[in-house]
Amino acid sequence: MLKLELGDAVKQLKKLHAKRVFLQVPEGLKTKTEGIIAELEEKGFEVVTSMDPCFGACDLKQDEAKRMECDAILHLGHTEFVKKTSVPAVYAPLKYELGERFERIIKVITEYLRDERINEVCIVTTAQFLHYLPLLKKELEKIKVKVRIEKGKRVEEGQVLGCNYSSAETKALAIIYFGDGLFHPLGIHFATGKKIIIANPIDLQIRPLEEEKDDFLRKRIMLIERAKEAKSYAILVSTKEGQNRASEAEKIKKELEKKGKTARIYTMDFISQEALLGIEAEAYINTACPRISIDDYLNYKKPIINYPEVEYLLGKKDYEKYKLEYIY
Amino acid sequence: MLKLELGDAVKQLKKLHAKRVFLQVPEGLKTKTEGIIAELEEKGFEVVTSMDPCFGACDLKQDEAKRMECDAILHLGHTEFVKKTSVPAVYAPLKYELGERFERIIKVITEYLRDERINEVCIVTTAQFLHYLPLLKKELEKIKVKVRIEKGKRVEEGQVLGCNYSSAETKALAIIYFGDGLFHPLGIHFATGKKIIIANPIDLQIRPLEEEKDDFLRKRIMLIERAKEAKSYAILVSTKEGQNRASEAEKIKKELEKKGKTARIYTMDFISQEALLGIEAEAYINTACPRISIDDYLNYKKPIINYPEVEYLLGKKDYEKYKLEYIY
Repeated sequence: MLKLELGDAVKQLKKLHAKRVFLQVPEGLKTKTEGIIAELEEKGFEVVTSMDPCFGACDLKQDEAKRMECDAILHLGHTEFVKKTSVPAVYAPLKYELGERFERIIKVITEYLRDERINEVCIVTTAQFLHYLPLLKKELEKIKVKVRIEKGKRVEEGQVLGCNYSSAETKALAIIYFGDGLFHPLGIHFATGKKIIIANPIDLQIRPLEEEKDDFLRKRIMLIERAKEAKSYAILVSTKEGQNRASEAEKIKKELEKKGKTARIYTMDFISQEALLGIEAEAYINTACPRISIDDYLNYKKPIINYPEVEYLLGKKDYEKYKLEYIY
Repeated sequence: MLKLELGDAVKQLKKLHAKRVFLQVPEGLKTKTEGIIAELEEKGFEVVTSMDPCFGACDLKQDEAKRMECDAILHLGHTEFVKKTSVPAVYAPLKYELGERFERIIKVITEYLRDERINEVCIVTTAQFLHYLPLLKKELEKIKVKVRIEKGKRVEEGQVLGCNYSSAETKALAIIYFGDGLFHPLGIHFATGKKIIIANPIDLQIRPLEEEKDDFLRKRIMLIERAKEAKSYAILVSTKEGQNRASEAEKIKKELEKKGKTARIYTMDFISQEALLGIEAEAYINTACPRISIDDYLNYKKPIINYPEVEYLLGKKDYEKYKLEYIY
């Protein structure tokens, strides 16, 4: 069960003497918005709520908060991302409470490590399970497994983001991804080249990342090869503060033009096929959230690749050494 | 036929020594975007194009232009709206070229005025037909009709906007709306109380605004009465620079709260039902573009009214004197 903890955030807001708060709510919490506002109002805050789609703390609406004369931003469900802000920002995490599932997944993990004779692991997870990492470490140390929780750059200890896998840079040979879904484990594998074990505390399954790796790579190569055939490119830049990569877009534009291609820069707040309907470019280069071209590429009518993949398209890098770059 | 004239805009951009231009394209021109970029590139500009939906010059993306390191904004299809800008803005109008239709509509108008024995009129229109107003004036003066083109506030001479009918403030008893559609003629009528004649240069018809007035008023009253029954309100504020009415929203919130209602402020870039799905408030108060609640109210699941209409909801004003306020 996902649980929102406002207590710490309220304390931080009080400490900032914030009176008028600009509230940003992630998509998964939008239906709970009014309850959250009521709770904040009870604590004495005036609340202005942003209803624009919000998928991460990279989407920090400072300009909008200023325009609405708010003296702080309260960002729900994500951890700090934009470091220097002109409006103070406070983050309230969304924590997944596993209940008795935690003990059960511990049992699953310890058995697996014993069977596989693994005695050293690095453990990583996403924001919503982050509070379980120290507990997991403690439990695994009980069975004499050496556990590393690495401090990545610009993230919490052991935290991975779709655009930042630096917490998976480790001396350990195996990495346990404690969480749900394939997006992050694939990212960790292609960022580090390490063996990835997926321990899913929701369905209580554990298994190594296997054939999905080849499948993922095949799809990336297919997309990049299709994009390579294009004569004209739309380089997509999000105007969201933490996703804005204007200079990278400029660099890629010049490189593509050197190869005789047409390349133009398009900005959007939220990148979508709908916003691109008027554009006839034959392929898209995404400089915003990498998830757009990895999880959602089927939503686009033209091949869409992430901007670090342009190096493969230009023949500067070889598919055999395909690597997902941290772009943040 | 709609015709985009870039010549003057290019001159203005050169005069500003602009090198990198942030291009904003209205929805009706989006499919022509790449041709326009090519034309600007030929003139030596670097172009960054915004693909966010754009319906007016109230939507001036200065923050985004700065983030993309552009030194000027080129806004297509609309006239100046935001007066003080930190990034210089240049406007390129979209002109409707009537061709031989112009002579034909002149004939239609002159016959109508003769038949109705009208010898003084004020003429108004929207941006795309603005270049015809002096010609229309000249033609009507030939048949001894006194023609007034009023200089409204913050608009061009004779220009009306959905949020500003000040060019229709006139001593003349009749106002000719030279243009298409019912949105503006209804607005002019309910802003001025004057007799409105619609002269449509597209279908070459002329007629007074008649029963639509009652129909419009009936719908507004119905919406306001439905909104009056609500216990909770979502006050919608656009974060678009020229549509942002934070202080009006605050004022309305306080007035509704005084009446024992719940009222909360929500911001969005582009206001839509989709963005409001998580919100259970029973009615919406729109402080952004008035067209949202006039032309598009059927898109919303809850009654949506414009913020000046809150005065009727609160019983401060009487429906018999229903008036559309200029909100800009």
